[in-house]
Amino acid sequence: MMAKELRINTFQMCAPIHNWAGLWRLPGDRAVDYNKLDYWTDMAQTAERGLLDAIFIADVFGVYDVYGGSPDAALRAGAQIPNMDPVVPVSAMAHVTRNIGFGITANLSFEHPFQMARRFSTLDHMTGGRIGWNIVTGYLESGARGMGRSVQTEHDARYDLAEDFMAAIYKLWESSWEEGAVVRDAEAGIFTDPARVHRITHNGPHFQVDGIHLSEPSPQRTPVLFQAGTSERGRQFAGRHAECVFINGPTQKIAAGAAGKLRDAAEAAGRSGNDLSLFLAANVIIAPTSAQARELHAEYSRHLDAAGQLALVSGWTGMDLSTLSPEDVVPFARTNAIQSTLENITAKAPRPVLAKDLVALTATGARAPFIYGTASEVADQLLEWAEATGVDGFNLARLSVPATLNSIVDQLVPELQARKRFKTAYADGTFRQKLGSPSARLMAPHPARLHG
Amino acid sequence: MMAKELRINTFQMCAPIHNWAGLWRLPGDRAVDYNKLDYWTDMAQTAERGLLDAIFIADVFGVYDVYGGSPDAALRAGAQIPNMDPVVPVSAMAHVTRNIGFGITANLSFEHPFQMARRFSTLDHMTGGRIGWNIVTGYLESGARGMGRSVQTEHDARYDLAEDFMAAIYKLWESSWEEGAVVRDAEAGIFTDPARVHRITHNGPHFQVDGIHLSEPSPQRTPVLFQAGTSERGRQFAGRHAECVFINGPTQKIAAGAAGKLRDAAEAAGRSGNDLSLFLAANVIIAPTSAQARELHAEYSRHLDAAGQLALVSGWTGMDLSTLSPEDVVPFARTNAIQSTLENITAKAPRPVLAKDLVALTATGARAPFIYGTASEVADQLLEWAEATGVDGFNLARLSVPATLNSIVDQLVPELQARKRFKTAYADGTFRQKLGSPSARLMAPHPARLHG
Repeated sequence: MMAKELRINTFQMCAPIHNWAGLWRLPGDRAVDYNKLDYWTDMAQTAERGLLDAIFIADVFGVYDVYGGSPDAALRAGAQIPNMDPVVPVSAMAHVTRNIGFGITANLSFEHPFQMARRFSTLDHMTGGRIGWNIVTGYLESGARGMGRSVQTEHDARYDLAEDFMAAIYKLWESSWEEGAVVRDAEAGIFTDPARVHRITHNGPHFQVDGIHLSEPSPQRTPVLFQAGTSERGRQFAGRHAECVFINGPTQKIAAGAAGKLRDAAEAAGRSGNDLSLFLAANVIIAPTSAQARELHAEYSRHLDAAGQLALVSGWTGMDLSTLSPEDVVPFARTNAIQSTLENITAKAPRPVLAKDLVALTATGARAPFIYGTASEVADQLLEWAEATGVDGFNLARLSVPATLNSIVDQLVPELQARKRFKTAYADGTFRQKLGSPSARLMAPHPARLHG
Repeated sequence: MMAKELRINTFQMCAPIHNWAGLWRLPGDRAVDYNKLDYWTDMAQTAERGLLDAIFIADVFGVYDVYGGSPDAALRAGAQIPNMDPVVPVSAMAHVTRNIGFGITANLSFEHPFQMARRFSTLDHMTGGRIGWNIVTGYLESGARGMGRSVQTEHDARYDLAEDFMAAIYKLWESSWEEGAVVRDAEAGIFTDPARVHRITHNGPHFQVDGIHLSEPSPQRTPVLFQAGTSERGRQFAGRHAECVFINGPTQKIAAGAAGKLRDAAEAAGRSGNDLSLFLAANVIIAPTSAQARELHAEYSRHLDAAGQLALVSGWTGMDLSTLSPEDVVPFARTNAIQSTLENITAKAPRPVLAKDLVALTATGARAPFIYGTASEVADQLLEWAEATGVDGFNLARLSVPATLNSIVDQLVPELQARKRFKTAYADGTFRQKLGSPSARLMAPHPARLHG
């Protein structure tokens, strides 16, 4: 059997810093232009030149204010704050490209399915069927407070709400308008055949809907569904709903375990484990020679912003790390935040974990493989990780802008192509079809089709 | 004193039909492509070629189901259904233009200020300060039902909620981040100076906010504020908040009255009447000769879809017109829907108004001037209307796509320029500055600056 081609997304965010605080200060770095439209259209064109599968845009709805009980450290570092709505730049990126997909993070905790359904249908129409939705529930208390709620919903209850949300939004996307309902028959004077448009009613514990979906069916109807939960409840949700799952995994063993459990969860939900495309987060630094890659790594490390990084980690773990001295042991405790973060950080850390270790650890791979070297060396390692873990590909994080993406497109992709482990042209069809589905639409037994 | 230049927006909607049902069936009409991105980028480039002030995109959150108690007639006619989220195409339109503004309709009834603030800040960043927000509250019961609410909020109560919404969102846009808070100082390692970012608390009757605004200040901070209310309560709201007001007026007397009352409302709110730019809706058909314009009018009239038009009017007025025979007198009654519609329809109608009169009346100008002729004839009439009513310009409705906009850009604009009544180049600066403001930001005594 021929070895599979890797899938590669570029992992981005509408903020000056994503996961490695300090890198916006690199000489010539363009991250400071995150709020300019050309920043996004240039990125899209570069990524499509490299035949990448998707631009995956993270989002966080809130600010990292666990560290020191204030947003000050995050603000000073530009650590995911300021941030912006990732829906907005999509149509511009779609306009300058033809094939690349867009994985857009949208938090459903503060949305209603009736409204969200229209927004994503519009995105799918305007991109010609290239939209994916990364389904997240909020984990920052600050986001809940901003929205006038006194506390964030508890972790598992967020998934109950998400299940109800999905049940309602599937009905709108898949069942309200039959195939062929929109006839555009000018002679007969019929735009839509009303007999083939159906009122949706949903009376769930959290959401009620009564009405027809406002948009006509888009090329994919339901966007390609991304998800990232790796708690037990999150895996159960992913097993039922996700087509692509984004996983963190600092060691091959952890990543392989997460991958296996996710495929099991899909089987438990009556789907095939192979219905899931698994993307492992990874950080890469690529240069023409190993020595140059080492130098780049050293330069990035010199620019690491310790306080900004701890502000991020405090948000991820829900623990205020500002009170610790560098030599203090980190007192890990279970919180209401992202549960996998803790497990991932501790997996590769020295025991006990000292406060000073956290900064470099989390920036460079406590949560994900961190690989630097020549394109050939990086390709070796990515292929080894894929082999050892069973993932389908990687979400390659932005480190320096646009250097990281340029190096992926100009160095890594040709190397993988030479090894026949990366496509040399996009497949036809929608984003879902380019990811290997025989259909533009989700198919049974996916729960979206239970009602369609 | 030199006569003022007219302001002209093109008035669009993300739907196959806007206000004149049936026109999508015109030979060669492109309205059926409303869900394609090129439709929007082509429109933007054409409008900017004509130096138009803005692309004003209407929206309706719901479906017209008053007529016959079902959405069938609206669906068959494509009458504002299907419809899409007007936020989505903006960045693509911004990418292919440099100067034109975007007036985007967004219903605040189902939004939260914390989330809406981030979305519009993102739009303003990505367009380089070219965003306007047309503030609307929902008027279709179907929209409320879709969102799981049993009844739409009553008319005046919607404005109470809107006042609370605006008070909260102004704080986020204007007061959370001081000027100069974002320093982007790579050497000092400071992206944002946290001392100049402030937590916003808002405890209103409808909305609570506790947190910093998530986006850094965009070029205009608060987008240019459009509003369209002409009820007494609506005018009071416009007088306090609006910078641009979109008015309907079937006769010069009604339009002049509305314009005068709006400027009075601004004065009553402590602002100047001239702080408002008033745009009168108008329908124009322009052709090289009067005879050709007459022929176009006849052709458009032949394509008028009576049932689709009555579906629209039933939605606007809240009266089910499906039960009436053509010769029946229309029993006008006050409802919870758009109050000015009734007044406007009856103003120009024969008395009593028969059901059969409503169709042509509402398509061709019961709510707005309807003018057809050569560019010179249309210019004469628009200037006369502007003179007689005191409005600053017009929202020229899309009738045929792209014929209407092309005729405005290629025929009407040069005619107005030759008369020195239309600009020959865009002014510098943001949308607000292009509209004549000395500042990119709103200025006191506008209530947005009470907190800034």
